[in-house]
Amino acid sequence: MGNAMVALKARLADLYNLGMASAVLGWDQRVFMPAGGAESRARQLATLAKLHHEMGVSRETQDLLAAAEAEGAGGGDGASDDAALLRVARRDLDKAIKVPTSLVVEMTEVCSLAEEIWVKARAENDYASFAPWLERIVGLKRQYAAAIGYQKRIYNALLDDFEEGMTADVLDPLFEELKQAAVELAGAIRAKGQRGRDKILKRACEEAKQEVFSRKVVADCGFDFSRGRLDRTVHPFCTNFSPNDVRITMRYDKNWLPGALFGCLHEMGHAFYEMNIKAEYEGTPLAGGVSLGVHESQSRLWENMVGRSRGFWEHYYPELQRTFPRAFKDVSVDKFYQAINAVAPSLIRVEADEVTYNLHIILRYEMETQLLEGKLSVADAPAAWNAKMKAYLGIEVPSDREGILQDVHWSGGGIGYFPTYSLGNILATQFFEAAVRAKPEIPTDIAGGKFGGLFAWLKENVHQYGRKYPPAELVKRATGETLTTRPYAAYLKRKFGEVYGL
Amino acid sequence: MGNAMVALKARLADLYNLGMASAVLGWDQRVFMPAGGAESRARQLATLAKLHHEMGVSRETQDLLAAAEAEGAGGGDGASDDAALLRVARRDLDKAIKVPTSLVVEMTEVCSLAEEIWVKARAENDYASFAPWLERIVGLKRQYAAAIGYQKRIYNALLDDFEEGMTADVLDPLFEELKQAAVELAGAIRAKGQRGRDKILKRACEEAKQEVFSRKVVADCGFDFSRGRLDRTVHPFCTNFSPNDVRITMRYDKNWLPGALFGCLHEMGHAFYEMNIKAEYEGTPLAGGVSLGVHESQSRLWENMVGRSRGFWEHYYPELQRTFPRAFKDVSVDKFYQAINAVAPSLIRVEADEVTYNLHIILRYEMETQLLEGKLSVADAPAAWNAKMKAYLGIEVPSDREGILQDVHWSGGGIGYFPTYSLGNILATQFFEAAVRAKPEIPTDIAGGKFGGLFAWLKENVHQYGRKYPPAELVKRATGETLTTRPYAAYLKRKFGEVYGL
Repeated sequence: MGNAMVALKARLADLYNLGMASAVLGWDQRVFMPAGGAESRARQLATLAKLHHEMGVSRETQDLLAAAEAEGAGGGDGASDDAALLRVARRDLDKAIKVPTSLVVEMTEVCSLAEEIWVKARAENDYASFAPWLERIVGLKRQYAAAIGYQKRIYNALLDDFEEGMTADVLDPLFEELKQAAVELAGAIRAKGQRGRDKILKRACEEAKQEVFSRKVVADCGFDFSRGRLDRTVHPFCTNFSPNDVRITMRYDKNWLPGALFGCLHEMGHAFYEMNIKAEYEGTPLAGGVSLGVHESQSRLWENMVGRSRGFWEHYYPELQRTFPRAFKDVSVDKFYQAINAVAPSLIRVEADEVTYNLHIILRYEMETQLLEGKLSVADAPAAWNAKMKAYLGIEVPSDREGILQDVHWSGGGIGYFPTYSLGNILATQFFEAAVRAKPEIPTDIAGGKFGGLFAWLKENVHQYGRKYPPAELVKRATGETLTTRPYAAYLKRKFGEVYGL
Repeated sequence: MGNAMVALKARLADLYNLGMASAVLGWDQRVFMPAGGAESRARQLATLAKLHHEMGVSRETQDLLAAAEAEGAGGGDGASDDAALLRVARRDLDKAIKVPTSLVVEMTEVCSLAEEIWVKARAENDYASFAPWLERIVGLKRQYAAAIGYQKRIYNALLDDFEEGMTADVLDPLFEELKQAAVELAGAIRAKGQRGRDKILKRACEEAKQEVFSRKVVADCGFDFSRGRLDRTVHPFCTNFSPNDVRITMRYDKNWLPGALFGCLHEMGHAFYEMNIKAEYEGTPLAGGVSLGVHESQSRLWENMVGRSRGFWEHYYPELQRTFPRAFKDVSVDKFYQAINAVAPSLIRVEADEVTYNLHIILRYEMETQLLEGKLSVADAPAAWNAKMKAYLGIEVPSDREGILQDVHWSGGGIGYFPTYSLGNILATQFFEAAVRAKPEIPTDIAGGKFGGLFAWLKENVHQYGRKYPPAELVKRATGETLTTRPYAAYLKRKFGEVYGL
């Protein structure tokens, strides 16, 4: 390694450590901080973000990167870790430099305030109070996209921050296909008239016991508590401060077991990704998941492909019955399996089943593109939302609280983020199919409570690489294919065909 | 406020926020971090410390301070907050600039490693393995003192970091007086032959109930849980990330109730200081306690003057008996009061009673000066320790583990720190006496479980000022006197004369 590369890595490590420090402050804020600490914490985070941005785009960092590029990464074929590091560092720097600091600061401030406004607006079902802020955010996002630059569609500039290389031109036909398949499958299920199968999941299950059960399950799956934590928060999330300190959080609802049960498996899937990235990448831009879509694929894989599979419950159901005898002693494993896979159109995205989930995403994606392209006004957005809910899911939206105000993303500036949820659903099946192809014993192992083979395949083929390969290349290397809905469509048809006897 | 002052304050706020970020990371490390996170956390803290030091001594900071000084702080009498801010910022900067970055880095690294070595050496009772590190630390502290500069005694350079304006020439006669008084009082008590009065405190008290009781007591005293937390750690401490986010930690020992009971009051005293500093000082160098001695006075005041007073237990003892009926139903409040004020020479400083505590400090102070001045070698230090223990406390030291290896301070570079514990004991009585002079109802209030008057006096006369006044000036303003042992000597004589019927 040349001197310039050594110097660059030292600089990047400082940047990495600043980012990790922010993550610790963010975690504490949401998990343990007393209410009184909020204002000071915002200032602390702002200082760290400012120093990170200033240091990231400074002349010194630019010179260090240029010198390291001039020196070359060795190997010559461009496939070395150092070559990837230079590629990713250059991508990050070029993007960061294009955005004026004033815009960064304004976006941070507006989104921070807007999020507070949104909390209140949602609570009070008052879209009008949020609308001016959404207007500002859409405007800032347009400015941001113009600063970054893009090909063809403005949406691509935003999407690229979350999913490198993905474009609206790819998403449009993909989502059209998902939409038709979901509407069709949901319609067939509705025609069977078997609503209410999930009623048994509302039976009381003591929260403390839910937590004990969840801890056992994630530990069985491979979550190493000497390298991570599981705490309680209002909104579950996963964060990490190193590959050896990955923290997930959960909320427990006495009358809704699946929330925590599958929530833990979901966050655990995110955690495995961060825990398994090559140790040598720590402190470099290669540390961290490569995209939100790939990240979500890991959470959805464990939540749905594993956690909502019949085999998983063949293993765990007796223990669940012992833990909650009052709730489940009269419920067969078959009934339980049907309950956790019940399909019904619903108002709230985060509670949606596997079949209808993508319809919630597509609705948001369509509205985002229209808002950005000026084809939909902020004032007309609630009506557009409600019309799409009716068209795609067949349900009336009784209030904006349960409609356009339900998600935090837009208030926080997360426009362009939603599609990665559906990409995650698709990629989860692609990765799972590839894993089973390589290790056909995986489904039997799961039914025996053994998860080591799947864990190892994911680590080997997905996790360890961090940001080394762009998402598309990672998917190709891991599965032999580019992004495709084939395994996903087959999975949904097979699983729900069987669950509902279609 | 002039433009230069505005710019300086923005800069100082960034420095403050970086420091607070480090504090959050430090708290998390000791309270919740999984073991796996240790190495990364050390790197994160090192980056923050480096950036803090670099930014603190940078040309830009120097220029901003010089410009603000040239602009003047307004008011003209030098008594304004801004004038104090300039004085303190100048003091911090001038000190920081004198220390070469290489020395800062070497001290950080050596002390970080030495602390690990010390943990092992103490566990294995192996002073020889720690000696070379102590040698290095003493050497580095000499270099540091030379870089900082000092009048007359090398010790003064180190002491000034913890207690501005204090010198060895002041401490020498003060400590001689304390030593004689303590030896005399302890001797008189020993002559009464009443050992073992504290045996009842070893009765089993469930840890969870100790915590509940402690939480109630600190809340009664004024600890606001919406602006702070109380968690569990191996080593209790107090830290803060703003005046509105102050956190204390505690350990609970089933068979030693006083540990947590008085430990909580102790840390709470530290916490009150930080919670009550003027809100406007946040983000400036005026935020924070002015010295370790004044800080310790606050913890000792609540722990001893309040917590080990008869009145306090007249109020709380019935509740303690209800909480731990098995342990205390046959113990009168008098016996309990005698037990928590039992005096007996002991090996371990942190377990020492009020009478003999200072002897532990004086021993360390004498050894520190001798080590720094080359009058005592590191190799001879254990023998010197043991001889002083015999001379001052009349007890044999059975092992270095219970002798010279018992405290963490030296391994962490904290030479010059110990005297502030005794200064805290003295100042606690000075402040308490002044408070009672101003509000004679305080003792009666305490016996009625009311602490608001004392809390308010401390806030008004000590806490709110943060670092505005140097320690000596703060003491003069609050008590009308300079540092004096008069109230302290009288307090010990009166209290223990009565407890032991001397």
